[in-house]
Amino acid sequence: MKRLSISALCASLVLTVSAGTKLADATGYPISPVPFTAVKINGGFWAPRLEASRTTTIPLAFSKCEESGRYENFIRAVHPSESNKVDGYPFDDTDVYKTIEGASYRLSNFPDKALEHYIDSIVEIVGAAQEPDGYLYTARTQNPSHPHRWSGQQRWVEVENLSHEFYNLGHMLEGAIAYYQATGKRRFLDIAQRYADCICRNIGEGEGKLRLIPGHQIAEMALVKLYTVTGDRKYLDQAKFFLDARGTTLRKDIYLQSHRPVLEQDEAVGHAVRATYQYAGMADVAAITGDSSYIHAIDRIWDNIVGKKIYITGGIGARHEGEAFGDNYELPNATSYNETCASIGNVYVNYRLFLLHGDAKYFDVLERTLYNGLISGVSIDGGSFFYPNPLSSTGNYSRQPWFGCACCPSNISRFIPSLPGYVYAVRDRDLFVNLFVDNSAEINVKGKKLTLSQSTQYPWDGDIRLTIDKGSADMAVNIRIPGWVRNSVVPSDLYAYSDSLTPAYSIKVNGVAVDGTLDNGYFSIDRKWRKGDRIDIHFDMPVRTVKANPLVEADRGRIAIERGPIVYCAEWPDNDFNVHNIILNRNPKFTVSEPLDILGNIRQISTPVQALSYGDDGSLSVENKTLTLIPYYSWAHRGEGDMNVWLPIELSAASAIPPGASSREDNGFFK
Amino acid sequence: MKRLSISALCASLVLTVSAGTKLADATGYPISPVPFTAVKINGGFWAPRLEASRTTTIPLAFSKCEESGRYENFIRAVHPSESNKVDGYPFDDTDVYKTIEGASYRLSNFPDKALEHYIDSIVEIVGAAQEPDGYLYTARTQNPSHPHRWSGQQRWVEVENLSHEFYNLGHMLEGAIAYYQATGKRRFLDIAQRYADCICRNIGEGEGKLRLIPGHQIAEMALVKLYTVTGDRKYLDQAKFFLDARGTTLRKDIYLQSHRPVLEQDEAVGHAVRATYQYAGMADVAAITGDSSYIHAIDRIWDNIVGKKIYITGGIGARHEGEAFGDNYELPNATSYNETCASIGNVYVNYRLFLLHGDAKYFDVLERTLYNGLISGVSIDGGSFFYPNPLSSTGNYSRQPWFGCACCPSNISRFIPSLPGYVYAVRDRDLFVNLFVDNSAEINVKGKKLTLSQSTQYPWDGDIRLTIDKGSADMAVNIRIPGWVRNSVVPSDLYAYSDSLTPAYSIKVNGVAVDGTLDNGYFSIDRKWRKGDRIDIHFDMPVRTVKANPLVEADRGRIAIERGPIVYCAEWPDNDFNVHNIILNRNPKFTVSEPLDILGNIRQISTPVQALSYGDDGSLSVENKTLTLIPYYSWAHRGEGDMNVWLPIELSAASAIPPGASSREDNGFFK
Repeated sequence: MKRLSISALCASLVLTVSAGTKLADATGYPISPVPFTAVKINGGFWAPRLEASRTTTIPLAFSKCEESGRYENFIRAVHPSESNKVDGYPFDDTDVYKTIEGASYRLSNFPDKALEHYIDSIVEIVGAAQEPDGYLYTARTQNPSHPHRWSGQQRWVEVENLSHEFYNLGHMLEGAIAYYQATGKRRFLDIAQRYADCICRNIGEGEGKLRLIPGHQIAEMALVKLYTVTGDRKYLDQAKFFLDARGTTLRKDIYLQSHRPVLEQDEAVGHAVRATYQYAGMADVAAITGDSSYIHAIDRIWDNIVGKKIYITGGIGARHEGEAFGDNYELPNATSYNETCASIGNVYVNYRLFLLHGDAKYFDVLERTLYNGLISGVSIDGGSFFYPNPLSSTGNYSRQPWFGCACCPSNISRFIPSLPGYVYAVRDRDLFVNLFVDNSAEINVKGKKLTLSQSTQYPWDGDIRLTIDKGSADMAVNIRIPGWVRNSVVPSDLYAYSDSLTPAYSIKVNGVAVDGTLDNGYFSIDRKWRKGDRIDIHFDMPVRTVKANPLVEADRGRIAIERGPIVYCAEWPDNDFNVHNIILNRNPKFTVSEPLDILGNIRQISTPVQALSYGDDGSLSVENKTLTLIPYYSWAHRGEGDMNVWLPIELSAASAIPPGASSREDNGFFK
Repeated sequence: MKRLSISALCASLVLTVSAGTKLADATGYPISPVPFTAVKINGGFWAPRLEASRTTTIPLAFSKCEESGRYENFIRAVHPSESNKVDGYPFDDTDVYKTIEGASYRLSNFPDKALEHYIDSIVEIVGAAQEPDGYLYTARTQNPSHPHRWSGQQRWVEVENLSHEFYNLGHMLEGAIAYYQATGKRRFLDIAQRYADCICRNIGEGEGKLRLIPGHQIAEMALVKLYTVTGDRKYLDQAKFFLDARGTTLRKDIYLQSHRPVLEQDEAVGHAVRATYQYAGMADVAAITGDSSYIHAIDRIWDNIVGKKIYITGGIGARHEGEAFGDNYELPNATSYNETCASIGNVYVNYRLFLLHGDAKYFDVLERTLYNGLISGVSIDGGSFFYPNPLSSTGNYSRQPWFGCACCPSNISRFIPSLPGYVYAVRDRDLFVNLFVDNSAEINVKGKKLTLSQSTQYPWDGDIRLTIDKGSADMAVNIRIPGWVRNSVVPSDLYAYSDSLTPAYSIKVNGVAVDGTLDNGYFSIDRKWRKGDRIDIHFDMPVRTVKANPLVEADRGRIAIERGPIVYCAEWPDNDFNVHNIILNRNPKFTVSEPLDILGNIRQISTPVQALSYGDDGSLSVENKTLTLIPYYSWAHRGEGDMNVWLPIELSAASAIPPGASSREDNGFFK
């Protein structure tokens, strides 16, 4: 097995190898990521977020793993006993793996010997729990009377809690690979690889093997990653076996997307996180193997998601029940589930589809998810988390520092530090500028090493200066013109701008305006670039109104308000009236504030509305008010209360609570 | 064949024989009608209606039959020719038969030699068109190249316009029997009976016969009536054959209720008029044969209609397409079809179910239909007609003096004169007082002849004085306490009173209050009655509000307003604002006017509302107004314009048209 240099291995969360290295081709994607290790966030919107992740989220996650007995489970597995029951869920091991993964990304930028030592000691505990043949799943190992190995994969209903053996493998691999890349230490990777080998020996086609599929599809993504790291084809084959066997084993279940073979799937159904991991795994296998039938399948599913199943916040998985996608256009607001993990999965899928197709529309969805339904899952200080991310609330929602099922905090732990990896990408002599983030980066384009930087307050304004700080290259710089500038909310029939604005944009090179046309949503400037060259990008950033497809019942007669990539909401602390009992002006006008000293320097939006209520005499009252809006992601930082994203602009959607009643359900006349 | 006396045969439209005659038992119904010939309308609400029918509707119908070539068709049939095409529809003959039927009822009360002579001459023309074997269907006879006899019954799509051979028989029999009863003249009855014999010879079970069913089920009702008049069992057998064969022939079609055998039907589907005639025919056959399976089937269907498919006006058949029942709870307002003929059919069915079961709930539905969705079908002057009877309008609806397909005017011609037959009924020593109508009547109860009278302004107030004017009897007088007094809109889960009123009622005999309990909705006073005895009935008649089952989408957030049996609506001439753009007070208060000198001395209702609109600046305006309501049946007498029955009381149902826009669809913001 070929040993790679650590620097070459310091890759993004998503794909293992950096652009320009030999193994980049091993991923098969026509476009290569510029890994997060090559991009440094300097300031602007994201610097405080990444700092909060480093100083709060990851330490918190480790301490919660410790407090909640997640390490203890490994120790118990060393000495199996009837009296030792599983604490919590059988997939609790993965919170340890996911936090190691996030910490590893952090170690790349912020070397920290104490932290490294801490992780080394966890790895030793993890390794101790491994059975002689490589099996590593504390839920079973610590209690021999539990159902035998792999049984949870076969019998769904009876032993549901033992169905995460492959899920645990997936996150173990992701964490182990990240730690190996960050430190060069093989110990954790060896442990994980031995578990992978154990599964490859026991599961698959052929004599003596069990023909089983993972209940949760992280394994497929992780096995592809293990292949790109090790070059050992059997891991890729195992991932492909898992994908191809799905829908052909006895375990047919829409919840875990095994209702039919993956190539025949054309609608996003079932558990949303599992679904996105499956689609990401399919993209990874398709990129390497060149199998276009996989690509056609995920393209169809993507059309289904963005056309019929995604919230305007980028959230997916509308239903609480089964944490699942709903039916087409089933997008309730107060009860929307939108698990934070599903938003992360949605980023994975869209990123991969960009790497396959090079179309900006995937980054439109990614950016929408990122700035809204994903970061709403973590508080601004990095210390508390949402599991579901609803679009409307009458209270009873607040972020928690941890959950019994802690997938979301640990997924946030590993996602946020990986953010810099999404900013750029390269293909041959093309450089893609996908996100507008204050950063400096070192990028190889066709063997030329460049240092460049962005200076921007995006998403608060639409001005970005991109500078070549070092090096020169003959290349095309492809700047993504965001969907909200291209008048495309997402390329779908689900949402449309309902205002008549067409935001202008301009691009100057060294102060001189450049004309050009858009190709797949990118503005391309092809020339010889030299040190000191600068690109000034300007997007007009008006407040915009969006309406939903009328088939979305919950949004009828309502509009949502956006500025740039940010979806806004009305929340109780900023308004002295019930934010649900309003009607917007039919021709709404908006005012945008200067950056404020609250909620991480947000900008508020205000607009005249009418507050509706009933008088004691039963007649409707209408009072002129000013509604103040904040970015959706920043809600629920000031206590529980009313919040709303989709605001009534037609009477059919408006409500008016009579005096004394606390909610619409209590309002008297018709019970 | 037994020849009955003319006086005994002067019976109601519905059932041929009067109570107390021998053949009454032949109908098999446990309750016997008191025929319309025994009841004289003196004044009050109905006298002007019947007078309009006599002096306007029937003469108009005859003149339209003449003008439109309906007589000419019979003459053409005497001399068939390739060049003689059918004028209009193949069922145009029935308008002639139906008008003769209505005129016959009129002749009973208003002998008119000139009219009788006119009808005799029409009968001669009709008879001339009869083929030698009795076949009488001018659409075919006048043009030999038309498809052969009965073919329209077999092949639905291709020869739809020749499918009314049995329908024409049905109305011919109804008209001929009525004329025979009114005048004792057999000529028309003989003609019709010969056609019935022709059909009995050719259609049915057994060798040489065609196993066909009528496309339209009036034939079944009429053949039973022919049996009760003639005593010839073969007509009853033919009716039963038609019913039992339905759903078992090749012609399976939900439109004409042949999708399954009638005994297996449990939902009202397809063409509403055909459906009601079928259910009425089933009731008639069940009453005579005692076949309870027929009764169970129509009981199930009745539950379906009143629980899920009837409008608050009593209208049925929601869909324009196919003039058909919609799905359960499919009750749109602006597009409701509610054919006038279907309301008449609905009366037939409920009357028969009352005669079978003796429950007041059937008369609750009958009365609701009568005072609302049925008489809305004819103008107050008797000279113009509605085909559909919608519950909401933005204009484009006005009554017409005639239609190419003239079933509704001619059905009104025969129905209105029959109204007196629905007031009373008898069973052994029970007298039923079902409708409150100013009248005097001669009634046999257990062989005792009584003359009694009602004096009332019902439905404008709830005071009725019932007097025994002549005779004496030991009997139970059973007074129907209307559903709106019993707090039951109809005994269904479709509508409910949303106010908290419980209208009081009182009953006095000779000035002394009588206590009693209700049995099947009837207040029974069992005693020896003598000449001069009087019953004073009083119903409180408050304005009441009704809400629909939330499953009726079109009525959500709305209420309807009733007083007594009358459903009210808001119409444009009485209001100086758009009656659609209002919201009712949450605790609506109502004022009832004195009788007014408009629209036949109606009483109006008024209530404070708020008129909603948008100002030029896009903000909602709310203006206090008084909404004036009129009885639904009296709308559309003052030109075309806005009308609404279900009025918004919740914001979700309210609309507000911006200045300059003419309807909600034009209101700007979202196209």
